[in-house]
Order: sequence, then C-alpha cells, then structure tokens
Amino acid sequence: MTLRIGLIGAGRMGTTFAHHLAFTVTDADFAAVADSNVETAKQVAARYGVKNSYGDYRALLDQKDIEAVVIASPTGTHAEVVKAAAEAGKQIFCEKPLALTLKECDEALAAVEKAKVKLQIGFMRRYDPACVAAKQQIDSGAIGTPVMFKSMGRDPKRTSLEFAKRENGGGLILDMGVHDYDLARWLMGSEVERVYSEGGCLVYPELKEVGDIDNAVVNLKFANGAVGNVDLSRNAVYGYDVRTEVIGSKGSLFIGNLQQTPLLVMTPNSITHDTIPYFMERFVEAYPAEIRDFVRCVMEDRQPQVTGRDGRAAVAIGVAATKSLDEGKPITL
Amino acid sequence: MTLRIGLIGAGRMGTTFAHHLAFTVTDADFAAVADSNVETAKQVAARYGVKNSYGDYRALLDQKDIEAVVIASPTGTHAEVVKAAAEAGKQIFCEKPLALTLKECDEALAAVEKAKVKLQIGFMRRYDPACVAAKQQIDSGAIGTPVMFKSMGRDPKRTSLEFAKRENGGGLILDMGVHDYDLARWLMGSEVERVYSEGGCLVYPELKEVGDIDNAVVNLKFANGAVGNVDLSRNAVYGYDVRTEVIGSKGSLFIGNLQQTPLLVMTPNSITHDTIPYFMERFVEAYPAEIRDFVRCVMEDRQPQVTGRDGRAAVAIGVAATKSLDEGKPITL
Amino acid sequence: MTLRIGLIGAGRMGTTFAHHLAFTVTDADFAAVADSNVETAKQVAARYGVKNSYGDYRALLDQKDIEAVVIASPTGTHAEVVKAAAEAGKQIFCEKPLALTLKECDEALAAVEKAKVKLQIGFMRRYDPACVAAKQQIDSGAIGTPVMFKSMGRDPKRTSLEFAKRENGGGLILDMGVHDYDLARWLMGSEVERVYSEGGCLVYPELKEVGDIDNAVVNLKFANGAVGNVDLSRNAVYGYDVRTEVIGSKGSLFIGNLQQTPLLVMTPNSITHDTIPYFMERFVEAYPAEIRDFVRCVMEDRQPQVTGRDGRAAVAIGVAATKSLDEGKPITL
Amino acid sequence: MTLRIGLIGAGRMGTTFAHHLAFTVTDADFAAVADSNVETAKQVAARYGVKNSYGDYRALLDQKDIEAVVIASPTGTHAEVVKAAAEAGKQIFCEKPLALTLKECDEALAAVEKAKVKLQIGFMRRYDPACVAAKQQIDSGAIGTPVMFKSMGRDPKRTSLEFAKRENGGGLILDMGVHDYDLARWLMGSEVERVYSEGGCLVYPELKEVGDIDNAVVNLKFANGAVGNVDLSRNAVYGYDVRTEVIGSKGSLFIGNLQQTPLLVMTPNSITHDTIPYFMERFVEAYPAEIRDFVRCVMEDRQPQVTGRDGRAAVAIGVAATKSLDEGKPITL
Repeated sequence: MTLRIGLIGAGRMGTTFAHHLAFTVTDADFAAVADSNVETAKQVAARYGVKNSYGDYRALLDQKDIEAVVIASPTGTHAEVVKAAAEAGKQIFCEKPLALTLKECDEALAAVEKAKVKLQIGFMRRYDPACVAAKQQIDSGAIGTPVMFKSMGRDPKRTSLEFAKRENGGGLILDMGVHDYDLARWLMGSEVERVYSEGGCLVYPELKEVGDIDNAVVNLKFANGAVGNVDLSRNAVYGYDVRTEVIGSKGSLFIGNLQQTPLLVMTPNSITHDTIPYFMERFVEAYPAEIRDFVRCVMEDRQPQVTGRDGRAAVAIGVAATKSLDEGKPITL
Repeated sequence: MTLRIGLIGAGRMGTTFAHHLAFTVTDADFAAVADSNVETAKQVAARYGVKNSYGDYRALLDQKDIEAVVIASPTGTHAEVVKAAAEAGKQIFCEKPLALTLKECDEALAAVEKAKVKLQIGFMRRYDPACVAAKQQIDSGAIGTPVMFKSMGRDPKRTSLEFAKRENGGGLILDMGVHDYDLARWLMGSEVERVYSEGGCLVYPELKEVGDIDNAVVNLKFANGAVGNVDLSRNAVYGYDVRTEVIGSKGSLFIGNLQQTPLLVMTPNSITHDTIPYFMERFVEAYPAEIRDFVRCVMEDRQPQVTGRDGRAAVAIGVAATKSLDEGKPITL
Repeated sequence: MTLRIGLIGAGRMGTTFAHHLAFTVTDADFAAVADSNVETAKQVAARYGVKNSYGDYRALLDQKDIEAVVIASPTGTHAEVVKAAAEAGKQIFCEKPLALTLKECDEALAAVEKAKVKLQIGFMRRYDPACVAAKQQIDSGAIGTPVMFKSMGRDPKRTSLEFAKRENGGGLILDMGVHDYDLARWLMGSEVERVYSEGGCLVYPELKEVGDIDNAVVNLKFANGAVGNVDLSRNAVYGYDVRTEVIGSKGSLFIGNLQQTPLLVMTPNSITHDTIPYFMERFVEAYPAEIRDFVRCVMEDRQPQVTGRDGRAAVAIGVAATKSLDEGKPITL
Repeated sequence: MTLRIGLIGAGRMGTTFAHHLAFTVTDADFAAVADSNVETAKQVAARYGVKNSYGDYRALLDQKDIEAVVIASPTGTHAEVVKAAAEAGKQIFCEKPLALTLKECDEALAAVEKAKVKLQIGFMRRYDPACVAAKQQIDSGAIGTPVMFKSMGRDPKRTSLEFAKRENGGGLILDMGVHDYDLARWLMGSEVERVYSEGGCLVYPELKEVGDIDNAVVNLKFANGAVGNVDLSRNAVYGYDVRTEVIGSKGSLFIGNLQQTPLLVMTPNSITHDTIPYFMERFVEAYPAEIRDFVRCVMEDRQPQVTGRDGRAAVAIGVAATKSLDEGKPITL
C-alpha cells in the first residue's frame, strides 16, 4: 500500500522532494506535480515518471485520488495553499516557514483543524541523526536540565535579492532563523518568551536596497528562565555552517561538523580540509527522513511530530525577533 | 535507455546491490535475481519488484535480454560465475575479491578477454569521495612523489567462522586486506613487489580452529622503491575503522574519520562521540557510485576504471602476504 | 639588567604570577611580596626566595628600590592600589578587571597619567598564541572585514559565593565577560556601543542569594555596525570551555579547543577524550608571556599593548551589560 | 636540599636540558657544564649562571661535589661517558639512545651495575601526559589485552648529513625508531622478538651517499604473540608527526595530535590549521618532567622508571631492524 502524493512547487526545494518522492520514500506514490510555471511542472513530471502535471496547484487539489500534498511553493503562498489543500481534504506536508505572518499562520491552522487533516512542517533538522540523538540524550537526562541554547545558521553566500525581500522570504531573521527557533523550542522543552536582535547589512550592500540584512544575533529568553542565542550570517564564505549547543546543568551537547570529505591535505606548515557546501549536503539524510515519516504518519493515522502549531510557534519567534531589530528593543511574545 | 541487469547472489552484499539497482541507479533496469537459495531470490524479487528469480545462476545467464550481471555470490564461486557470465556474453560487475587463487583469476580473465565483455571489480573505495579526492590531489602533484603508503582495515567484530575459513573467504590477510592492496596500487602508482606479514590469533581463539587469525601487519615494498604497511584487525570493538595515508615528498594525505554522527556528548571531564558502525555506513556513497559507473561504462562502451587485471593484482598481493605469514619470510611477487 | 618587581596580593592569581616572576620571566627580579594576610606573604616569600614580605601593600610601595608592581589583590581593591602605586611612582601591571565601576577606573587612570607611569591590564588572552595568530590573520586581511564576533566563556564550576557578590568580583557578566569584551574590541577593531543581556540563576540557587547569576548571553553592537554575542556560563561541568569566532566578509576564524591531552580512548561504540581543566591550563603560555612583555615594555620604555584605557573600556561594556540585565533593556554606552 | 648536577654536552639537546636544570626543575642545582667545544661550555655557563665549565667531560667528573650528570653528548660517545661517570660514582641521566651497539650497551651497563649508581635513559615520551594516561588506561584494563601496536615517527625535514651517518646517529631505523621501540615494550608489556624492515632513500638522495635512508616501515612480533608496526619518515614536510595506537581486545587507544595552535582559518571552501613544528614543541612538558623525575629518584633513592636495561632493549630492536633492512630478511632478537 502506498500513499498517493502530489507535489506543489517545483523549485529548488520542490525538486529535492520530487527526488525523494520518486526514489527514496518507497511508500510514496508520486502521482502529480504542480508549478506556476507549467513547463517546469511538465519537466519534473517527465523526469520522474509522474503521470499528471499542472500549472495551477488548484487543479492538482482537484485530482480526487491525490491523498496528500507536499507544498514547496514560494513562502508567501504557503498559507494560502495549506488552506486550499485542507479544504480539499488533503493531508499536508508544508515546507518551512508556515507563513510570514501570524495572521496567515492562524488562518492556515484553522482550516487544517476544521478539515481534520494532518499538517507537518518541514523542519528537517528534527530528522537529522545528530539532532535526534541530541534530543534522546536530553530526554534521558544525560545533561541534566538544559539552561542555555546556542545555535548558528550560516550560509556560504547571500540569497537572491528577490527572495531576500521580506514579503517574499521573510528576511534573514525569520527565514534562516526559523530552523533554530524550532530547535530551541524542541531541545530546550520550553517556549521562547522574549527576544532581542542586533543585525546589520555589512557585506552585501545590495541587500539593504531590498530591505534585508546579512548578519544578526538574536538573544532568547525562555519561559522556564533558560537563555539562548542564535546567530545568522549570509557570508560564511568558507562553507555552510550550522552548529547547535545545549548547555545543561550536568553536561552539554554539541551538534555540528565543518568537514564534508574525510580527507586532510597536509602541506608545509598547514593541514587543510574541505567544508560542507550547503544545506542539501549537510541534511542529506534528513530530507528523505521527514517525508518518509510524514507518509507513515498519514498511513498509520498518527499525528506528525512537527505540527502546524510548531510551525506557528517558530514563525512567532522570527516575527518578534525581526520586530526587535526594527524597533531596537526587546520584544515579549 | 536503461541497462537490463541481473543480480547473482542475494546475501548481505547482494541485498545492498539490489537496493541500489532498484532505487539509486536510475539507468539500471533490475530485471532478474538468482540465489542458490531460491526462496531468498524470490523474496528479493518481490521486495524490489523484479520480474524473474532463479535458484541457479545459470538460468539467469540463460535469460537472453539480460545485458549485464552483478555478481555477489560467495567469494569461492566468483571465478566460476565470471567465466560462465562471460561465456554467456554478459557484461560483468564482480564483488571483490575476484577469486581466492591466481589460477582462478587467470581462468576468469581469459574467459572475459575471449568474450570481449567488460569486467569491473567491486573495489568501492575507489568511488569513496575522500579516496577520489586523494587520487586527484596526488595526480595534481600536491604532495610530490608518494613514498610511503599506510592503510588500516579494522572490523568491529570477527566474521563468521564459516566465512573465516581460507577456502571460503580467503582469510584475514586476503579478504580484508584486498581493499588496501588495491588502494596501494592505485594511489601509489606502482606495483607491490615484495610483502612480509606478521599476524596472530589473539582475541578470538575459535578463529584458530578454522585456520584464520584476527590481527596482522603487512609490510609492502613497491617496484619504484616506495614502502608501505597495512594493518588488519577483527577487534576494533569501538567501531569500524578504515584509514589511509600517503606520505609524499612535498606533502601528505590522510583519509579517514572515526565519527558517524556529528554530536559531542560532554559530561564531567570527558567528551564522547560515536563511531562508524560498519563498512556500509562508511562507504554509503561508494556502493551506488560504483554500480552507476559500471552501468555507464557499459552503456557508453568504456573500459571500467577497476578492471579484472586490477582485481587479479590485488589478489596476488593478498596471496603472497598470506604465504609470507605461513612461511615466516618475505615473499617476492 | 633586571627589573625589580613587587607582587601585591598572593591569592590564586598572585601565586601564579609569583611562579612566573621567580622562574619563567628571566628579566624579572622578584624582590618583594605583600598580602593582607602577612603569613601568606611570608610563605610565598620563603617559597620563592623573595627578600621582603609585607602585610600591607603600602609598605611594599614604600620600598624605594621596587621599580614595578604586579597587582593581584582582590578586584574591589584594584583601583585603590593602582592609584597608590602610581603615586609612589611604580610601573604597574594590574590583573583584570581594572575596577568594578567606571568612577574607580577614571580615578585610577587619572593617577596613572599624572604620575606618567605605565599601566598594563592582565588580559592574558591577548598573549595566547591562538589569539595572537588570529589578530595577525585579521590584520593581514585574510578574512576581509570582521562583521560578527562570537565568544564564550564557560567555567566548569561556580565561583565562591563570597567572590560572586557584585561588590567583590563584579558578578558573572562583568567578571567573566570582561575577557571577551576585551577580545571583542581588539579583534573587531571597533568599540562596542550597545549591549543587551539575558541571564538567570538556573543551576546554583545559592548564587541568587548573593545576587549573582550562572548563565547569560550578551548581545553586542559595534560602532562600525558589526554585531556580536558573548555567552557566559558557570556550569560547563565537562571542563573549561573558551572559544571565540570572528566572521569576516572573506573568511572566518575559530579559536578554541576542548581537549587537554591528545589521547583518545576508544571503547565499544564511543570515542572519548579529556577536556581542559581550567583557565590556568588553557592559558598556560599566556600568563608568563604577559608578564614578560610588561617587563620588557618598562625596560624599553614602550607603551604596553593592553593599556589602562583598554582596561576601562572592557569594564564599561561589562557594567553596561550588567545594567541591561538589571533593567531589561538595551543599554547604549 | 638540592641535587648538584653537571651537564655533559651542550648541543641542541644539551641546551634544552640546561634550560630545565636552570629554571624548571627546582630541586636541581645546575653546577657545571662540559662540552668538547670549551667556548660553548663557557657560553652556556654564562647564560645560566653556572659556576664551572669544562672542555673535557672528565674534568667535570673529577669535580667531587657533582652528584649527578646529565649526558647529552654525541650518541657515539654515550657509552664511554656513562662508563666514566659510573666509575666516578655519579648518578646518571643519559639521552637516548644508550649506545649504537649492544656491545657498548653491555659495557656501560656493567660499569653502572658495578658502581651501584642509577642510570636513567632519556625516553621522554614516557613522561608525555598522553603516553602516561595511555599506560594508565592499559594498566586499568580499559582496552583488555593489547594485541597490536602502531607507532609513527615522522620528522618535518631530514637530519644533518653528518648525523645521518650510522656511526654517528645510528641511522633512521635506530635513531628515530628507538623512541617507538621503547613505547612498544612499555605499552604492550611484552618484549619484541622478531622484526622485519623495508626502507629506502626516496626523497633526499644525498642521504644515500652517507649510508642512510629517509623512509622505513618496521614490522614487530612480540613474545606474547602480539604484532606491531612502526613507520619512520624524514619528510613529513607538513610538520612533526608522532602518533601511537594500541589496539586491545576490548578497546583501543590513540595518542597524537597534529595541531599546535587552536586556530582554524576558514577561507572559501577550506579550513586550515597549523601543525606541530618539531619534537621540542610536541614534548614540551615531557623534557622537564623526565629530568625532575630523575632528580627525585636520586634524592629518594628510587630506581628510575626508564632504566639502562630499557635503554639496551630498545637499542637491540633498532639494531635488529637495521640488520633486517640490510639483509632483507626477518631478524629474531
């Protein structure tokens, strides 16, 4: 038995999901693809042997035998597509972030609840083997009570100017940081209740013109008193760099690596290794794992482990942290 | 266009190849499977949606539309199956080692040459990204002239007693070391011309009863004067441990890692990380890559990069190193 | 020719300096020691073969042939002792922090300027080989323009309750963080102009009773627009952990290590190494280096590289960051 | 109470010992220095405030109040000086190796035994914190029974041609390897009973002219059945590289590091760190520790932990391994 799935959005992330729907997640029956560019949809359909392709996601939702959708359309459309998919009775996997505003999040969640469908958000780090092992260590008590959370998200290059616009991607603090905010809530086991951000446009002046920044630090204060900090950078020119630490009362955890290929080149007076190119390489195992889990949750009628509520909570932190930067003061959620 | 492939042998390695033929190597059309246990063949066929299954590999070879075979039958049968496959005009991928004796190697190679088919040996390390990058560094001159080769192959536990018998697996020095001997020839760019081995049965006394040992060191002398050493152990109880070094006149290379998951657990006075479970995890990218390359070589009518000649040369070193242990003296190839 | 030096304060840091004055810094003539506990002073004098010992530092200052003093008295007395030493015409090395308030800093600096003596502050990290090399890399342009500063200071256990009182040690954010604030100014080449802190007493409730906290994060905004963050913890129970990163427009630097002894213990399924016990072990080379440089600066009549102005600037950040925690808002310096 | 010590030989190693006798080992009273170049002896005496200096070591031995000597004269003279020192009733610390031939070793040991003085050999690795911790782990049973020993000694550049002559330094396999042979005996707890060497002059052709080689691998067979291998290279141009592994039945140990300064320089697509310059930097703590232990052994009338017997045993392995290379066959000790 397989789950008949349609993919909405066939850009960079959509193509990744297409690959896993076609080859890696054996319980998935990749049955349709929609993209606002119908040529793109057709090409993806041809490449992966998918029967139906559409230029309008609503047409895909109208296809009765589609049981579930994977939404990888532009961030700004997530909420609208989630709502429509829920109303069409589809089970939903939606790439992060759920939306760019809390209002949109709430509308999407209301539709999902009304339709009694499942909604999983694409926080793939929750499926990264190291993050999973970290969560298990925390739950087992290995580090006592978590008291500090540190996380960094650093991209090797800036995003496109189009995507950098707040109305499109949400901006650095929301779009990139949302992964860290989700990890923060999950690993610390407490909600974030206050944030304060500093940031600036320091390396790519062209980002300023579209209203974005390239470097930021975000302080976190958790409901249980714990503290935290997230740093975000668009100029980790050495390579993709994501690291997370949880300091506990009896021990600490450090998640992260900087090396892609286990080769050291040793020349006079220095030792050199490569770095991780980008998030696809770092989370190569996490992407198929999250889709596989979604498919199984639907087939076994279980609640996804990363729900729409989680999606909203992470957006709420990002929105507040962005507001903190804009207003120059701490923001209480 | 795809290549119609049959799999011969559906044990541990055969199942790995089955997975890649079915899901990862998109140019492969996994069309038949044979195993001396016909039930096993049927199960694999069912799991991967393969049309034909056989209890006798000769029946698979008789299937006319099969263009190529992947041989993962017991080591002792490799030569015989290669010969039969060549005579049936199939393109051949054969798991390492090619055979347990040079006589068998020669017979298999003669059949392959006579039939003018391709033969690739499953030295998957040649497709490991770190080994590939190392080879590129050497070829680019980054370390000058390679003068010393060091390699270690260490398993976390002993093999089965049945496989440990020399007539089945070839014994520690041949079966495990053959990967290192192939790397030695490939990375050093020179043939091994003398070997000397020390070894013993030090941890698992039951191995002695079947004629095998659990730890060995093998010195190598290359034709160009370079030197080397391979160590082999069946009791790397901490985890699978494969590392290789090439010391050159102007620099050195170190290939290897000991950590599977990028998580450090930091408790009072110590920092701990996990290890690599086994070869499947270490060479997770290399197995599909070698099959993919084989398929492309056949489809594009190119010579495989790891030929039957390479397969014979590595066996020759292993046979000589085993003889050195038995006779207590250096053996010249 | 040597410099005749008196040591004021023979507690933990004072004893360290005594060792280096006696054995490591060959240009120093360790000639007198004062401690408010005269027995302690006598014991140190006896151990290191120092001629004069005093129970009152003013008596040491009265000793005419003493050319310079190393001040390692309790933090709360630094300013007073610096003033007195300046008035006595002594060259001054003062352990960090210069004082607990800016008023005291200013009084001490005024006395130093009036007396035209030298004043070096004990920011030993500036003499740590890794920090020195990092500064050289930045100055050479290797990472372009520094845009983000990250630093962590984590102790393996809490300080004494007596020292934790703000009026004694200055509290976590000032006392521990002052090293990071100095590194921030030095490595980033820009002044900090705004800070925001979050913190709490999460592990050692007894600290709350004396008015201190055990974990904090401090956001930094630099005058040139760069951003930063410092985290401070008293419960790095795994070991002393000090790491610093500078993210630049063209590269990044990472300073830090977590391992004291280069020994890996590999047991079933895990690899373990030790950690760095405490700051003495981490900065084992930096302490003699700073005293040696101070002695040479005096002998060669050069300005110290870490001046009283630097000492004040770091205190100013710490004071503001503490105030930010108290008032729950960003503080502009 | 201190031990009055004379230093014999003031070359590279002698100067190191002079520093520690003068500054680091507080129980030592550095009272005399001899060097065949009397000007050198005078300079060292002046630099460290030593009273007596001599051009002939016999004059130093004649100085009645000298209780102990540290011998750092050329390797070829070690045995002769040890004999003379023993006959003069001095306690003896002798830099490795004890001698270049077993005959000389035996003569020196006979003189030492007859005179009932102590003799410690300068195998400083036994005082390296990592090696000490490794020995403790083995003794505690943490890795079960040691079954394989791996060690590498690699210098960043070749030695002087004068020293490379076998009659002066002993040649690569004896002079460099003797440290590894001592570690082998100590950590494995068993004597080496057979060796086999391969080697060649591959990088520095000028070494061939003086009868030395630059790269070698030496297989070891221990009396208890364990196996081992040592590799030696004079062209680790990336930096000094000494690593040792002990594989046991229940775990393994890895001793070694490749990084001197904890600074990572991260530039586009690569991460680089420095390397360890040379043995002085790697074993910076071990040299004073061995001298300190020697002084205490004498003062407390305890047997040194590295005896003359140990010195002879390591030379015996080196002599056999050199003979193995010369004769092309395994040599039984």
